[in-house]
Amino acid sequence: MGAKLKSFAATLAGVLCAALLAFALFTDLAPEEAYVSHYYQFLIHVMLMIFVGFGFLMTFLRKYSLSAVGLNFVLSAVVMLLAVLALGAAQQGALEGRVSTITIDLPLFIDAAFAAGSAMIAFGAVLGRASPSQILWMLVLMVPVYALNQWVVFEQFRALDIGGSMSIHAFGAYYGLAASRWIATQPGGGAGHANNGASPATDTFAMIGTIFLWILWPSFNGALGATPGGTDQWQWHCIANTLLALLASCVAAFAASVLLGESGKMDMVHVQNATLAGGVAVGSSASLRLPPAAALGLGALAGVLSTAGYVRLTPKLEAGSLALRDTCGVHNLHGMPGILGGLASALFTALPSLAARNTGLLVRGAAQPLWQLAGLGVTLALAAAGGSAAGALVTRVGWVRGAELVVEKLYDDAPWWHGHEGEEEEH
Amino acid sequence: MGAKLKSFAATLAGVLCAALLAFALFTDLAPEEAYVSHYYQFLIHVMLMIFVGFGFLMTFLRKYSLSAVGLNFVLSAVVMLLAVLALGAAQQGALEGRVSTITIDLPLFIDAAFAAGSAMIAFGAVLGRASPSQILWMLVLMVPVYALNQWVVFEQFRALDIGGSMSIHAFGAYYGLAASRWIATQPGGGAGHANNGASPATDTFAMIGTIFLWILWPSFNGALGATPGGTDQWQWHCIANTLLALLASCVAAFAASVLLGESGKMDMVHVQNATLAGGVAVGSSASLRLPPAAALGLGALAGVLSTAGYVRLTPKLEAGSLALRDTCGVHNLHGMPGILGGLASALFTALPSLAARNTGLLVRGAAQPLWQLAGLGVTLALAAAGGSAAGALVTRVGWVRGAELVVEKLYDDAPWWHGHEGEEEEH
Amino acid sequence: MGAKLKSFAATLAGVLCAALLAFALFTDLAPEEAYVSHYYQFLIHVMLMIFVGFGFLMTFLRKYSLSAVGLNFVLSAVVMLLAVLALGAAQQGALEGRVSTITIDLPLFIDAAFAAGSAMIAFGAVLGRASPSQILWMLVLMVPVYALNQWVVFEQFRALDIGGSMSIHAFGAYYGLAASRWIATQPGGGAGHANNGASPATDTFAMIGTIFLWILWPSFNGALGATPGGTDQWQWHCIANTLLALLASCVAAFAASVLLGESGKMDMVHVQNATLAGGVAVGSSASLRLPPAAALGLGALAGVLSTAGYVRLTPKLEAGSLALRDTCGVHNLHGMPGILGGLASALFTALPSLAARNTGLLVRGAAQPLWQLAGLGVTLALAAAGGSAAGALVTRVGWVRGAELVVEKLYDDAPWWHGHEGEEEEH
Repeated sequence: MGAKLKSFAATLAGVLCAALLAFALFTDLAPEEAYVSHYYQFLIHVMLMIFVGFGFLMTFLRKYSLSAVGLNFVLSAVVMLLAVLALGAAQQGALEGRVSTITIDLPLFIDAAFAAGSAMIAFGAVLGRASPSQILWMLVLMVPVYALNQWVVFEQFRALDIGGSMSIHAFGAYYGLAASRWIATQPGGGAGHANNGASPATDTFAMIGTIFLWILWPSFNGALGATPGGTDQWQWHCIANTLLALLASCVAAFAASVLLGESGKMDMVHVQNATLAGGVAVGSSASLRLPPAAALGLGALAGVLSTAGYVRLTPKLEAGSLALRDTCGVHNLHGMPGILGGLASALFTALPSLAARNTGLLVRGAAQPLWQLAGLGVTLALAAAGGSAAGALVTRVGWVRGAELVVEKLYDDAPWWHGHEGEEEEH
Repeated sequence: MGAKLKSFAATLAGVLCAALLAFALFTDLAPEEAYVSHYYQFLIHVMLMIFVGFGFLMTFLRKYSLSAVGLNFVLSAVVMLLAVLALGAAQQGALEGRVSTITIDLPLFIDAAFAAGSAMIAFGAVLGRASPSQILWMLVLMVPVYALNQWVVFEQFRALDIGGSMSIHAFGAYYGLAASRWIATQPGGGAGHANNGASPATDTFAMIGTIFLWILWPSFNGALGATPGGTDQWQWHCIANTLLALLASCVAAFAASVLLGESGKMDMVHVQNATLAGGVAVGSSASLRLPPAAALGLGALAGVLSTAGYVRLTPKLEAGSLALRDTCGVHNLHGMPGILGGLASALFTALPSLAARNTGLLVRGAAQPLWQLAGLGVTLALAAAGGSAAGALVTRVGWVRGAELVVEKLYDDAPWWHGHEGEEEEH
Repeated sequence: MGAKLKSFAATLAGVLCAALLAFALFTDLAPEEAYVSHYYQFLIHVMLMIFVGFGFLMTFLRKYSLSAVGLNFVLSAVVMLLAVLALGAAQQGALEGRVSTITIDLPLFIDAAFAAGSAMIAFGAVLGRASPSQILWMLVLMVPVYALNQWVVFEQFRALDIGGSMSIHAFGAYYGLAASRWIATQPGGGAGHANNGASPATDTFAMIGTIFLWILWPSFNGALGATPGGTDQWQWHCIANTLLALLASCVAAFAASVLLGESGKMDMVHVQNATLAGGVAVGSSASLRLPPAAALGLGALAGVLSTAGYVRLTPKLEAGSLALRDTCGVHNLHGMPGILGGLASALFTALPSLAARNTGLLVRGAAQPLWQLAGLGVTLALAAAGGSAAGALVTRVGWVRGAELVVEKLYDDAPWWHGHEGEEEEH
């Protein structure tokens, strides 16, 4: 089976060599003041979310923990490397020939980590069902589309989306779901698969991811909320709104898990995921000065919506004509709450009382709500188109795909990890 | 069994709706400069301690890890929400009608996280023996008593207790122990219960909690040790004193574990808990300029005292006339070291040489030691009274209690978590 | 077996009492401005690396997780306590009689945590094969040699080594390997031992360590890269160079793991270790203004070198005439990449184009490369001599050694931990 990883390793080596060449030709470090005291703790927090948060959240599958945390690690590193180049070029005008060198600074590293976050969301949709090579190619191809979408939403539309409800979460979710439609479509490879579930130990490992994501989410939404020398007022709004939304979505998700589930018990799937939906939903409007109850209410709504998605919608989407498989339920945690976040930002910026308190942020004035909706629409379109194209490529090109995965070996570390071939692997 | 969680979920939903209403009517965000660079990293550190630290510390029970980390998560969120309201009202004078709106800022969030820490200590006393509904009610009722005690100790008595040896640790421990006297008193439900122990995996999970608590404790004691624009000297004292006390209590606890235990081996119970006792004990006097050896000595004493408590006292308290059950041994980690911390603060402020070096902190002058003892006394009285009342209520009111837990299902996730009903759960 | 821990506990108690006395006689806290906002987050990050990073990285052995994380905890605390004294005395001139009191400040705590990191590397070489008492003595004896080497490399040679490629990583690795030559040399106690391997659960626990080390490594290399009131430019170089080197070594290690290993699969040993080699290798030159591609290239080279070491070199060293046992492969992660880092710093400072961009750092001018090589040479010599002496002592002095460990009980928690004696321990 080892040969299955040849294209994975060769692609990693090729991407690294190409990145080395591109960094040598086109980049330099920011020359002077680098604002370590201003940005560095936020970079570390966001990286903790990507590598610890998403990495351990995805260890919940009882036989696929090593692949989850291991692939999350290397794929995030690949995406960060490429995103420094792609986002740097798009933001600094290198593509239009305005500059010939990308300047690397701390905000660019933070943006690159955001891109890795979006990629890990897409990874979650196909977790356990795609070969490492397929996932690698799917995410390498995602980077330019992600950068293009960022450029449209922020540079052209000037939409508000500081926490990325639309451009990070919804984009990653729908890119991954569109690709998922192509991957591992054989019967028996979905929700009912024997390996597609958790053990007490892997559920506990997954909680490491959830808790780190939940605590650090205010840093995610607020990392770029203040500029050195300026006020940190918008950053404070990001922190307060996100923390309030998360408190509410945590409580709401636990209540909804008991009240909506059939067993009348708490469900680890909801606890690990829907508790975080408030952070997703408040992302587009996090920098606004909102009444505290608005952030709380939006978080509570997102927690209920996300839990209801896991209980009611996911089974229907898989059983229905779409046959949509979504291992981590990213549609429930990042898709729907991301759309909710985009819609909420349109609503909040349309309310005269809120708009009057936030004039400094609404560069589009009274038209801001429309640009919010436009940003949401473009994001969904680019994500769906890009994900579909990537899904087609990684399943149709034989060298990328490698040998077809047999259905028994889905959600299983055994094909990929040295020394972990045995059946005694479950833990 | 699912019906047992009805009152839990309904209470969560009710608390969330009530909080939404109260936040809408009575709160607003701090308007201008929010001092993100000053307070934010400390808020994150304290939240890591509450949600990762306490959450994983309590996963040590071999069949109750999901409940430990899951309930720690939602209950801390509930307490933080309510504590923003209760502590904000008490501190800002809303109760006396001086203001009509609670202003939410970063120090208030930090104080709310401290309240959640105190609540998780109380939770530790009854871990595995109470229904989620009982624990939820016990902790919701704790918030106003906690806020009252804070108001007395800090606003009225002006006692020194920056790290909460008395008002956070001792308060939480004795509130929980007083409630524990009422809960799960049936024979066979205590230390000898088959589920009341750890496995190698759950002991390793618990070490995640211990290590995070230990590393971040200087932030706990020092989070509010400096004011923006002022000196950070007192905060530096908090950091240095706490780190020194923790280094000593770690080394002392390991030595005492081997020397005091019957087996002559190291004991994970002591390593997970008594190593932290230095952080508890130095809390009341952390902001003082102490000789480094005083902090070291206090930490070493706390480490030995706490280990001795686990080895000698806990079995006697359970076997004796009190029949006191204390799953996590909070009496040894937070109760006795908390009292030790209060007494140490009285001693340190009574020593002329130390008092002379710390005049800026001793607002009571020569009477400061007496106010320290008064603060300790009030804390113990309010905690015992409040915990007893709460324990009576959650065991006597049928709707809160739900069905009586059968003794076989104590310390077990099976009754509460969907998909985790089987006997193969142990890990 | 409990008696085996008598000397361990007695030594802990003795060290603590001696430290108490020394702190009482010879130390005081820094009196005024403590620069909390400048240094504190870096201290926390470095401590997270030592206690969470190294602690969990070493939990990979399937039956030795409690000893790994527990001994890492107490031994790091012991080393930190002693290193505050030893490094403080050496740096502040107390040994030459220039001052009579060691002033404790945040940079000294950071330096003490670095010393604990170096000690944990040495611990990794003998993990599972030495008694707690042997390891404790080996590391207590390491502190003065470590402080002497620091004094030579930094104070006398003025070599560049801000991230400690030479003075932390190579020193710790070769000290540990020299000691390892003496310890547990009986047949059957090496790579083929039944307990000397991982389970899926312990491999997942170990990934906690790897990921924390990887994320926080820029803080390790940059913690002391800026002085309060000065520019943070050198610190920014440390952060950027380290992050780029780590991204490259992560990707390179995954590719090399598949391409160099016999099974053609990914190997958790490489993922847990070689991914970090870029952080080690870039340490000596991290503060230099380098082209981004140089940091990337150095990281990639280190990732491949480290993986190749695990695949090719480690088996030969153990089977060869040296019979060198190295449980964690510290030669591959800290030894060779540390030497590579020293050589790279000599090369970078010898290149005229780079030297011209970094004149402020090269206090030796054109002779800087030679002083880099001198620092590397002294480090290797002192580490080898010190480690050999310590290894001889802890195996020859009966009271330190305790009873000889039988080969069946190597890599096993059972002899050391109360309540974990059974065969069912594996997890």
